[in-house]
Amino acid sequence: MGAKKGKLVMVASRGTADGLYPALILATTAAAQGMEVHVYFTFGGMKLLNRKTVDKISPSVDLGLSERELGALLSRGGMPSLKDLLRQAKEGGVKIHACSPTMNLFGTTQDELLEVVDDVIGASGFLDLASDPDAVTLFI
Amino acid sequence: MGAKKGKLVMVASRGTADGLYPALILATTAAAQGMEVHVYFTFGGMKLLNRKTVDKISPSVDLGLSERELGALLSRGGMPSLKDLLRQAKEGGVKIHACSPTMNLFGTTQDELLEVVDDVIGASGFLDLASDPDAVTLFI
Amino acid sequence: MGAKKGKLVMVASRGTADGLYPALILATTAAAQGMEVHVYFTFGGMKLLNRKTVDKISPSVDLGLSERELGALLSRGGMPSLKDLLRQAKEGGVKIHACSPTMNLFGTTQDELLEVVDDVIGASGFLDLASDPDAVTLFI
Repeated sequence: MGAKKGKLVMVASRGTADGLYPALILATTAAAQGMEVHVYFTFGGMKLLNRKTVDKISPSVDLGLSERELGALLSRGGMPSLKDLLRQAKEGGVKIHACSPTMNLFGTTQDELLEVVDDVIGASGFLDLASDPDAVTLFI
Repeated sequence: MGAKKGKLVMVASRGTADGLYPALILATTAAAQGMEVHVYFTFGGMKLLNRKTVDKISPSVDLGLSERELGALLSRGGMPSLKDLLRQAKEGGVKIHACSPTMNLFGTTQDELLEVVDDVIGASGFLDLASDPDAVTLFI
Repeated sequence: MGAKKGKLVMVASRGTADGLYPALILATTAAAQGMEVHVYFTFGGMKLLNRKTVDKISPSVDLGLSERELGALLSRGGMPSLKDLLRQAKEGGVKIHACSPTMNLFGTTQDELLEVVDDVIGASGFLDLASDPDAVTLFI
């Protein structure tokens, strides 16, 4: 791919499919285009990085769909699962950051985190990633 | 207005009034100030661009108001409807982008889209718009 | 601290704990690191700046927790209250902006605003703050 073309720093804060899909789709697409990509999972978004909760992600308050209905839509639309997208992002070079204050809040241990996690950082670590004049930053 | 003053690129992902109003108010205001403005409607936000759903936008989970209550507040506050704001945005030069993956997901056809839509793009097209060091990017 | 290191401009649009905590935690952390920080409270987020509603912030639709459960988690996690974090942000130099269209919409008077509020601005004022190529902008 040659030199990295730009940088994308996202916060994935929502623990529902309609919040996590956009973050993961943007992450995998940006990585495929050669961008440096970071996703900082925090609050509800941390559900995706936790073995105990990764398979219990609700579809969405917003869309007003049940889990079964969203599942049907997703398979009809040929959309991969959130877990598959996360793995795909990781393989594409996306950096996966877990949020330490959220872990403290919910008493999450390091053992519960999926192996895709690159590191556990706080607000300060996130700001270091985002404070780059060339970075596109999105809070999702 | 002379030369464009800056660029604003927004993602409108929420299909509720409290998610769509901020996006449209910022879009119309920024366009009036001479900024180049793009709104990329995705997931729930696509409800606003679809003839079938544009009149069925829920007020908001967040505010805890019924449609009737929000309607009363909006008319008291002299706020235009979402549809009127969208038209106003379009007339002000705001570019309206529809999300192709969302359309695939929900089986939305091109015919169902309102005429204000400029084009149908995916994550890659959005990243091209957003990857401008001078752009203000907001995920709403 | 010497010269300011960067600028962080956030919109706090959600009126729930899971939307307000990230904004306030980022604000206080960024200010402590010497950044210039602005938080523009709008729509649901305005609940935090209003004497009538500041003590009635719901935990979160997203996390699926009751107020009591979130309170228990927060005290276990040693997390300060939203009110304390807001005061801490103010003391750290964070600028607190209230949204005039939201005030019109809900009929909020100036008297109802907490004293921490620096000013009342609209979309145009927010865009002036955000349209700085070096600013990190987040819509929360």
